Amino acid sequence: MLADALLDELVDRALAEDLAGGDLTTEATVEAEARAIGRAVARSELVVCGGEVFARVFYRVDPGVRVERALPEGENAETGSVLWIAEGRARSLLMAERTALNFAQRLSGIATAARRYVGALPPGSKTRICDTRKTTPGLRALERYAVRCGGAHNHRDSLGSAVLIKDNHIAAAGGIRAAIERARARAPHSSRIEIEVSSLAELEQALEVGAEIVMLDNFAPADVLEGVRLTRGRALVEVSGGVTLERIAELGKAGVDVISVGALTHSVAAADIALDVERLG
Amino acid sequence: MLADALLDELVDRALAEDLAGGDLTTEATVEAEARAIGRAVARSELVVCGGEVFARVFYRVDPGVRVERALPEGENAETGSVLWIAEGRARSLLMAERTALNFAQRLSGIATAARRYVGALPPGSKTRICDTRKTTPGLRALERYAVRCGGAHNHRDSLGSAVLIKDNHIAAAGGIRAAIERARARAPHSSRIEIEVSSLAELEQALEVGAEIVMLDNFAPADVLEGVRLTRGRALVEVSGGVTLERIAELGKAGVDVISVGALTHSVAAADIALDVERLG
Amino acid sequence: MLADALLDELVDRALAEDLAGGDLTTEATVEAEARAIGRAVARSELVVCGGEVFARVFYRVDPGVRVERALPEGENAETGSVLWIAEGRARSLLMAERTALNFAQRLSGIATAARRYVGALPPGSKTRICDTRKTTPGLRALERYAVRCGGAHNHRDSLGSAVLIKDNHIAAAGGIRAAIERARARAPHSSRIEIEVSSLAELEQALEVGAEIVMLDNFAPADVLEGVRLTRGRALVEVSGGVTLERIAELGKAGVDVISVGALTHSVAAADIALDVERLG
Amino acid sequence: MLADALLDELVDRALAEDLAGGDLTTEATVEAEARAIGRAVARSELVVCGGEVFARVFYRVDPGVRVERALPEGENAETGSVLWIAEGRARSLLMAERTALNFAQRLSGIATAARRYVGALPPGSKTRICDTRKTTPGLRALERYAVRCGGAHNHRDSLGSAVLIKDNHIAAAGGIRAAIERARARAPHSSRIEIEVSSLAELEQALEVGAEIVMLDNFAPADVLEGVRLTRGRALVEVSGGVTLERIAELGKAGVDVISVGALTHSVAAADIALDVERLG
Amino acid sequence: MLADALLDELVDRALAEDLAGGDLTTEATVEAEARAIGRAVARSELVVCGGEVFARVFYRVDPGVRVERALPEGENAETGSVLWIAEGRARSLLMAERTALNFAQRLSGIATAARRYVGALPPGSKTRICDTRKTTPGLRALERYAVRCGGAHNHRDSLGSAVLIKDNHIAAAGGIRAAIERARARAPHSSRIEIEVSSLAELEQALEVGAEIVMLDNFAPADVLEGVRLTRGRALVEVSGGVTLERIAELGKAGVDVISVGALTHSVAAADIALDVERLG
Amino acid sequence: MLADALLDELVDRALAEDLAGGDLTTEATVEAEARAIGRAVARSELVVCGGEVFARVFYRVDPGVRVERALPEGENAETGSVLWIAEGRARSLLMAERTALNFAQRLSGIATAARRYVGALPPGSKTRICDTRKTTPGLRALERYAVRCGGAHNHRDSLGSAVLIKDNHIAAAGGIRAAIERARARAPHSSRIEIEVSSLAELEQALEVGAEIVMLDNFAPADVLEGVRLTRGRALVEVSGGVTLERIAELGKAGVDVISVGALTHSVAAADIALDVERLG
Repeated sequence: MLADALLDELVDRALAEDLAGGDLTTEATVEAEARAIGRAVARSELVVCGGEVFARVFYRVDPGVRVERALPEGENAETGSVLWIAEGRARSLLMAERTALNFAQRLSGIATAARRYVGALPPGSKTRICDTRKTTPGLRALERYAVRCGGAHNHRDSLGSAVLIKDNHIAAAGGIRAAIERARARAPHSSRIEIEVSSLAELEQALEVGAEIVMLDNFAPADVLEGVRLTRGRALVEVSGGVTLERIAELGKAGVDVISVGALTHSVAAADIALDVERLG
Repeated sequence: MLADALLDELVDRALAEDLAGGDLTTEATVEAEARAIGRAVARSELVVCGGEVFARVFYRVDPGVRVERALPEGENAETGSVLWIAEGRARSLLMAERTALNFAQRLSGIATAARRYVGALPPGSKTRICDTRKTTPGLRALERYAVRCGGAHNHRDSLGSAVLIKDNHIAAAGGIRAAIERARARAPHSSRIEIEVSSLAELEQALEVGAEIVMLDNFAPADVLEGVRLTRGRALVEVSGGVTLERIAELGKAGVDVISVGALTHSVAAADIALDVERLG
Repeated sequence: MLADALLDELVDRALAEDLAGGDLTTEATVEAEARAIGRAVARSELVVCGGEVFARVFYRVDPGVRVERALPEGENAETGSVLWIAEGRARSLLMAERTALNFAQRLSGIATAARRYVGALPPGSKTRICDTRKTTPGLRALERYAVRCGGAHNHRDSLGSAVLIKDNHIAAAGGIRAAIERARARAPHSSRIEIEVSSLAELEQALEVGAEIVMLDNFAPADVLEGVRLTRGRALVEVSGGVTLERIAELGKAGVDVISVGALTHSVAAADIALDVERLG
Repeated sequence: MLADALLDELVDRALAEDLAGGDLTTEATVEAEARAIGRAVARSELVVCGGEVFARVFYRVDPGVRVERALPEGENAETGSVLWIAEGRARSLLMAERTALNFAQRLSGIATAARRYVGALPPGSKTRICDTRKTTPGLRALERYAVRCGGAHNHRDSLGSAVLIKDNHIAAAGGIRAAIERARARAPHSSRIEIEVSSLAELEQALEVGAEIVMLDNFAPADVLEGVRLTRGRALVEVSGGVTLERIAELGKAGVDVISVGALTHSVAAADIALDVERLG
Repeated sequence: MLADALLDELVDRALAEDLAGGDLTTEATVEAEARAIGRAVARSELVVCGGEVFARVFYRVDPGVRVERALPEGENAETGSVLWIAEGRARSLLMAERTALNFAQRLSGIATAARRYVGALPPGSKTRICDTRKTTPGLRALERYAVRCGGAHNHRDSLGSAVLIKDNHIAAAGGIRAAIERARARAPHSSRIEIEVSSLAELEQALEVGAEIVMLDNFAPADVLEGVRLTRGRALVEVSGGVTLERIAELGKAGVDVISVGALTHSVAAADIALDVERLG
Repeated sequence: MLADALLDELVDRALAEDLAGGDLTTEATVEAEARAIGRAVARSELVVCGGEVFARVFYRVDPGVRVERALPEGENAETGSVLWIAEGRARSLLMAERTALNFAQRLSGIATAARRYVGALPPGSKTRICDTRKTTPGLRALERYAVRCGGAHNHRDSLGSAVLIKDNHIAAAGGIRAAIERARARAPHSSRIEIEVSSLAELEQALEVGAEIVMLDNFAPADVLEGVRLTRGRALVEVSGGVTLERIAELGKAGVDVISVGALTHSVAAADIALDVERLG
């Protein structure tokens, strides 16, 4: 759930892109008083996500439009399922349609992808699939929400939420120990200290200085196994770096705690959703 | 080229997502005076796009960072090519990195996809590949720019730019003739009148009433050929509806004028670009 | 009709100008619970325009105020006619009054002027009166709406909506042919290609290369006639450049397709509307 | 002078109206590297106003454009005078041109009108011409500045700056005495108390209770004279209500202190300014 | 009362600070359907202020939350008093709680301090306690409202509302006489002319040239008395400069008209208010 | 360090409050060309904080003003020390002065208070003083920065950064165990799990289920000691709830890890800083 205040900012900006100059076609062809009903229909299997922002788009075009949600967020929808139903002035429905779908298709696309990744884990696995900060500029909060809808997890929200020490930070601090100690000394006590390591030697060093999460960056499969073995009980193991759907099962079996997948948000296909509009009266 | 005023709005909002709470790790581990150079490197083949917004992100974090463009927009970059170079305070580089890449990876991803679609046309083809209004909310102007960088074309900018009559408009107006006449009577004379048709019969009717562009919506291949034959010289023929890369060659051969491809912006993979940061001094 | 999302942005900004520091007088003299009714009355003949934004101003001050529209948009109102009626807390009415009227007077002023221009055309004329991009900064969408309310037409919405080649573009491209060809090659297929010409020779050249609209810039009356004759059937003829009300009839008779009038938005007198507030209870 | 921070908000919004979708024509016809110089020229006599915002528009499109002011603010410019000169990328000049002129033409139009009103006062007159809150929504600060540029004065900035008691306030408070006393008791001591009166009887009453400014609303000429006589030395006399240029001399002679003229901002003709662009190199 | 349009801007920004990334804890632990009631309770004596913005925070998180005000603005509340009651979804209440309290605690803190200062005046005193422009950036309108709630007065709203000549202005103008005359000649007639003086000699000079308000800046107690004596009847006397609660009684007895107190807004303790949330059903 | 993009948003809004209507006094009394230098001077001992935003205010009024920092952030400044020096147009300095000081006085006030709290800890103490989410609406990022400048620490940035389970969450989840388990299952792995407990029994329970931080809410001194003893090595101990400066030493001696102090941001006195402006030339 996102506060309405925050949704409005996103929705208003998106509407401005499409409607700042009005809707030439609709104003010319549809009478002002005509009413209609629009049904958002899944044209392929998908995980439902974005009902709230979908509804808000119609509301911000015209508060007289009512939107009902036929399926709850996170539900698996079959092809042909009705997801949401909007009813109101025909003009308002047509004006809001594309913007509402642009949001919903992206969010449902992400939720669908997230569920696919989660589903690729071995049965009973405790491994988490999680997102990254590789989100679409301006849509981070919504995309992270979609990741959760699909059953995956969120990584830290932003650079100000938690510590993640990368190679440049290590170099700047003068080594793994210094980097971790400085971070521990300065960062909020609410944040765990995570560090990215590029070899088993670095991993060992990070664990010695008390890293709470170790991110194995582009490790070979065998090294991942060894990394998990070394780490067990001393920190969480996160695997990162170009992980594809095909490698999820293997990584899950290896017992890593977290697999972070940038593609969940940066390379996702929109879910196929259409709005079937029917005139009323 | 986008006016700086418009870039800033997008960039500032994206920075707020990532940096509203500062950068815990960088502040803890990197000294305030340290300087660095960062090279944006293509990790796979791509079409360069987004240098301007990439630079603007660094500038809006810290106007002391200088960004140089090693490759021009629209260039094909090999794996390993340096695209852009940023130099300035190490802290500023690390704080801006992710946001700058999020923009650039998406735009280069779109440009790369656009070039792939254009490249699939038969040699010498006059057919246009063009985008749709299925853009990411908030990023329409940038994404349309990326489409052009890749050699494809833009469709109308928004609902207020040009007329495109769809089935609901036809129904509301009471038929194709009425819809086109009303649109002609009301819309700016700068806009062509486009209409979406779902059969050859509708196509014929639309042409009779003077449609300037006819959009063949989900036509079977044979019907596309027949549609092009019927239309030739009387209007532009646009083909739309779930067109994949595989069908481009055939549609190009059929002689359609425009192929609009929603996937160019709604289902695109980010280009793989990394920032290699090196400490100076 | 403008989406509420877009109206709010304009209304909120205007309210901030007048009410950021509250309303000293009203807070001091009017009790918090007092209720009132306010009738917006035409003090001279006018074309009604702006009821939606008028209502929205009151709503954004206080959602408890109800606004009823006594006359529809585009109606000719006599002196003394009640246009809109607001009812609610007296304080809210007094606080919103000036801002609401500032919008409504400007929009009704434009609609009234537009109707006057349209009325100056010969009976049965097919000539369009249309606006230009010479709109008040920040109010373009509303002003274009007002132009339509008065029965005139809109020109292109913005630089991104359609092509209009002017002298500088011609010079930069290296001639009329090159300019038109480049524009045709790059611009969205939804846009017609319009070009401004300054002589009959240029006109002829533009028509040869396929200009779809020719704008005769500051042509002498005889040249307009000749221009229309030359062009007929090959393109639309637009006349532009300091056109006053007095010349409309003549231009209409000449058979030009479009007369664009900057004064419709840049030099218009506010319609005279007052709010008569009456205490309730 | 307006703070850059405040100018940017207005300028960015205006640019968004015109350039959100880019500039189709300029991108198609003008090369990216071409440079040009643009001279803003008065096409009729005018009072120069708006150089700062004019320059800021170009800067916000492209910080590489340099703008020089050939004539200072408030100067009388002859037809043909060069006001301001912009130099930089040809594309940037063409993209910013219309928006920059829209601001400058409105501001110079207001300054020109203001000077005309001031010039209509009898020689040596101490009467002030001043504006009202009937400003264009969103442009109040700029328009008030233009009024000062033309030599006229500003009235209160907003409802929160100073007290002006009108008929509805009097009615709500239960009379002139109560209204003035309440206002005096609540309003900042920095504000004078002004009250609008509709008869000589009301005027007398207002003066007795210590009004510091009395606004004679729609008084007949003879009553204005009598009002000035009654008031002299006890308060300032302001005359308001549909005052036209023709009545200024008479009101000045009558010795009123202030004449407030809504038309200065709500019904003003844009000054005629053009940008002559010339290619460089 | 502040217009909703203006409240929303403040509220939305504050919510963005706390909720841009959602509420991890509440989403994890509280069911979506759970409902609750929250009572805002005074934990120490305070003057009630901020009910409107408190309510608006909940509304902007979730329009389904209803907020009732148990005590009116400006009321003295005992420890333990219920001020406001919010009822709705438990999640929404918990998400809005901190932001709503942050506003309300600050405003009630200011109102409480203002009342304390006013209460320190001698009985029957006509002296005003008033605020300054030393307000929290972004919150001026709310803080000035809180000052009024506590029974104190506002000074001018901003640099654009009224004239206050300080030492630098005097120096720039070349003396007190020149400064006052220039201000009188330029500033709106709705503004009184106030001048800050640093000695009795300057005071005398200012009174001679017609200053309407004289601000005695850091005057010794004896000089304040003498200043009041000199001024009586010719201008208002304002005392300013590090005035503490302890000096109020003495200054009130001295008969100064206005005491301006920066600490009212720049150094105030938050009122202690808690939200007691109880699950429903 | 805050990104310029984020500073501008705060600075522009604050300038709008004070300068939307211009600066009446300065425009009337100070010539446009006059130049001046302004020195920000500490009028009492303070910890320097806010130089960056101070400078940015001047820059956003007029980019021609240069600001130099005489003392670094976090430095202890004696009474009379010059902190920052601004040089440029006299008008710009006077227009920006109050807004720049309002930011700097608040931030230096917070930094000064933070240092006082930290200084109250026993020598060599490892206890952290940290802030809370009780920040001024709109200023959270700046205030948290000031807390760090004073040598104290930040708590979590927002509701989306880390988990902090309070009584209402425990009740909603059905107990401490359930609440912690749900949070662990849902929240980002980068966040530690903190829980607020109100008794030693609850503390024990929380530790058993693996809480990483326990917040002792309003514990009696003896219970704090016992809580620390029970917890040692199993979690971090945070003490919260109306902690005053007087209790810091005792809590530090008790060995608590973190003391969170709302007053650091919600009840702080502005540091006393003045701008001494001197005319140049």
